[in-house]
Amino acid sequence: VAPAACHIMRCLDVVDACRATLMVGFNRRFDPNFAALKARMAAGAIGSLEILSISSRDPSPPPLSYVRRSGGLFRDMMIHDLDMARFMLGEDIASVTAMGGSIVDPKIGAAGDLDTAVVIMQSNSGKVVQINNSRRASYGYDQRVEAHGSKGMIRADNQHETTLEIATETGYSRDKILDFFLERYAAAYERELDAFVGAVTAGRKPSPDGHDGLKASLLADAADESWRTGKRIEL
Amino acid sequence: VAPAACHIMRCLDVVDACRATLMVGFNRRFDPNFAALKARMAAGAIGSLEILSISSRDPSPPPLSYVRRSGGLFRDMMIHDLDMARFMLGEDIASVTAMGGSIVDPKIGAAGDLDTAVVIMQSNSGKVVQINNSRRASYGYDQRVEAHGSKGMIRADNQHETTLEIATETGYSRDKILDFFLERYAAAYERELDAFVGAVTAGRKPSPDGHDGLKASLLADAADESWRTGKRIEL
Amino acid sequence: VAPAACHIMRCLDVVDACRATLMVGFNRRFDPNFAALKARMAAGAIGSLEILSISSRDPSPPPLSYVRRSGGLFRDMMIHDLDMARFMLGEDIASVTAMGGSIVDPKIGAAGDLDTAVVIMQSNSGKVVQINNSRRASYGYDQRVEAHGSKGMIRADNQHETTLEIATETGYSRDKILDFFLERYAAAYERELDAFVGAVTAGRKPSPDGHDGLKASLLADAADESWRTGKRIEL
Amino acid sequence: VAPAACHIMRCLDVVDACRATLMVGFNRRFDPNFAALKARMAAGAIGSLEILSISSRDPSPPPLSYVRRSGGLFRDMMIHDLDMARFMLGEDIASVTAMGGSIVDPKIGAAGDLDTAVVIMQSNSGKVVQINNSRRASYGYDQRVEAHGSKGMIRADNQHETTLEIATETGYSRDKILDFFLERYAAAYERELDAFVGAVTAGRKPSPDGHDGLKASLLADAADESWRTGKRIEL
Repeated sequence: VAPAACHIMRCLDVVDACRATLMVGFNRRFDPNFAALKARMAAGAIGSLEILSISSRDPSPPPLSYVRRSGGLFRDMMIHDLDMARFMLGEDIASVTAMGGSIVDPKIGAAGDLDTAVVIMQSNSGKVVQINNSRRASYGYDQRVEAHGSKGMIRADNQHETTLEIATETGYSRDKILDFFLERYAAAYERELDAFVGAVTAGRKPSPDGHDGLKASLLADAADESWRTGKRIEL
Repeated sequence: VAPAACHIMRCLDVVDACRATLMVGFNRRFDPNFAALKARMAAGAIGSLEILSISSRDPSPPPLSYVRRSGGLFRDMMIHDLDMARFMLGEDIASVTAMGGSIVDPKIGAAGDLDTAVVIMQSNSGKVVQINNSRRASYGYDQRVEAHGSKGMIRADNQHETTLEIATETGYSRDKILDFFLERYAAAYERELDAFVGAVTAGRKPSPDGHDGLKASLLADAADESWRTGKRIEL
Repeated sequence: VAPAACHIMRCLDVVDACRATLMVGFNRRFDPNFAALKARMAAGAIGSLEILSISSRDPSPPPLSYVRRSGGLFRDMMIHDLDMARFMLGEDIASVTAMGGSIVDPKIGAAGDLDTAVVIMQSNSGKVVQINNSRRASYGYDQRVEAHGSKGMIRADNQHETTLEIATETGYSRDKILDFFLERYAAAYERELDAFVGAVTAGRKPSPDGHDGLKASLLADAADESWRTGKRIEL
Repeated sequence: VAPAACHIMRCLDVVDACRATLMVGFNRRFDPNFAALKARMAAGAIGSLEILSISSRDPSPPPLSYVRRSGGLFRDMMIHDLDMARFMLGEDIASVTAMGGSIVDPKIGAAGDLDTAVVIMQSNSGKVVQINNSRRASYGYDQRVEAHGSKGMIRADNQHETTLEIATETGYSRDKILDFFLERYAAAYERELDAFVGAVTAGRKPSPDGHDGLKASLLADAADESWRTGKRIEL
């Protein structure tokens, strides 16, 4: 168990001992489109889930000073996608394999991190997951989820800045997608705060809780270890 | 000049005499997508505008009691599209022709109104406009603008309830579009209020003003007359 | 009755007298997408048709020499859309109104023709039709049909040169649509020839026949007359 | 080296010794959309390629009799995607990791094969690739390629049976995508035959050649081994 997870476990013990209310900020669970995707799957829209694909690309890399203390791409960026996988699967992950490198900026590699990564995982019941991350996307904050199941496929696409389409002698064009998390997840943050306040007010345990945070963190550790060792990590 | 326009003219005189601040609620001018469409045209995206096409369809007809006192489809519904035409053209209309009938509900026809209408118009400089209206659209509140120009075409599409797409053995499906004006024009209403408050605060004349309201009203009168007489109406 | 229609009627008499096999080249009826649109309507996809919208724009104007002897835009270009309207409606047209001008090239106006036109029509049962034509579309050969009915809307979109989409810092882009009739209607021409050969081989009367040609020609005459006189033409 | 690759190497020796003309049937290289995607990348559309994503899903599983003698999913199905990766990357693969299982049909698992698979690979220069395969897609033959680069993203989408879109009270719908390889790759097969005949006629060496076949086969062997052992395979 990596140091970060150790710290988290100790924190969770304190939270339990104090009967404190803890909600972890996995904001994407509250995105109306991703939440609707999960609800449609639960309603049977694609039968039984078989392949989950998550694309998650930032518009541009963070400053190197952040990279050095962030814990690395798996822990500061992909952790949201790892939580998304657990959220969509409704079950835990059994094994993780990662590949990647510092393609965007070699200085990120020199700082011991990577900026481009792909991960494949398998859940306890055998469903497969693929995730790709990049620290650079010229066209905006690329956040997509696609689920393939026994009866079909469902996907949540990005949101463009406008609904405009322009056709000229060079072809058809649409605007970029929303630029970064404050714009893209504005509705998610609002719903997330509502959920937290609602839980506190009602005396309910909020979700996602600290154990969801811990599990995502352990997945990030596993992906990081797989990337560094070239081995498949079993959880 | 129809009675409604007479009343409006007298109102505008009073407004002028009192130096009152008047802004007319043509909310669609403030829709971010329609406003962006106009801005792109102004920036040269499609060259010189030649054909303007407006589709505007309500999800379902209003109650008959409303139909009887609304002034009719041209004055209570298409008036927004007639203003949109003036807004996008940046000039006034020279001639109007209308056709239509009560296809959705014969009771609307019995009340002296129509529920399905098409209008073509020509601007002072010769640009052409086509508008279609229906009081019924099973798939939501259909509000689209398309402009064709010397260098290309630009259009503003509807907004769907989510960005989801589902593929099954029956094909690919997306959600309906936003249901009616409160949902679809939420951002427009907010921006419209900002514009009004901003104008009042700054002591500026707000836009659209009473004369925009009058001109749209005269166009609605002309469309109504054309529909009733079968004649092209020159303004 | 205009001279062209007179000639057609005499031709049809000769065709009947000789028991000759005649099929008129309204190729668009055989376009797989338009044919599918009609079939879906017949199968009830949108309930009862209420508004038919046809966009038909050529990539660029024909030579002036052609304009001078073509019979004009209504007879050489919009005639296909007028036939498409009859094909989709499954009934005849009762009234026609046209507007337009020579916006693309004033020389076309000087030659007595127009290059940008909008037409609205009403069928015998009261359904409404809107058509727009332009002799210029920088983005390709724009050929779309949209039908709005009591239970929904169906439309046939253009075909792009490829299925590619590219996203960069300037936005998302797709290729132009197929450039002109030989590319766009390749499948239609093939199916049209099959239909003709099939009819001849089987001794069946082919469709569309000479009377479809005559009716489209009379509609083109009516649109032309409406454009020149500003009057609604009843058929 | 697996037996299949051994056989291929001996075949290639014979081909060389006989100076025979050999072209390998990787038909997807000739698909107009995938070929255009590669050409646009070569022209700089997305800068330098960083992440290549390939989705490849059959409409339904083959008969078990075929599964038993096909060499397995990696050798009979994913081999096309492995070749596509080499084709798009323009370089060779350095390492491969696979995961998957028999989710679609346990009988496929009992036959020693899998029906759902994900693979991640890294090229000699460090670019990453992700592939997902399923033997079942209710919505047709799902064949997509997406490339993410330093300056943007490019993707080739599926082709739908028609360009129709229908909107009703249940939402918007489009037709399924083309059902299987004969329909989807009709243009590719035609271009592939042209390339072969052209090469033979001109006395040129055709492409892809036997060594492309061997390399794809070695990748399939590596993916299969990775799936069976849980290890990353270096090539």
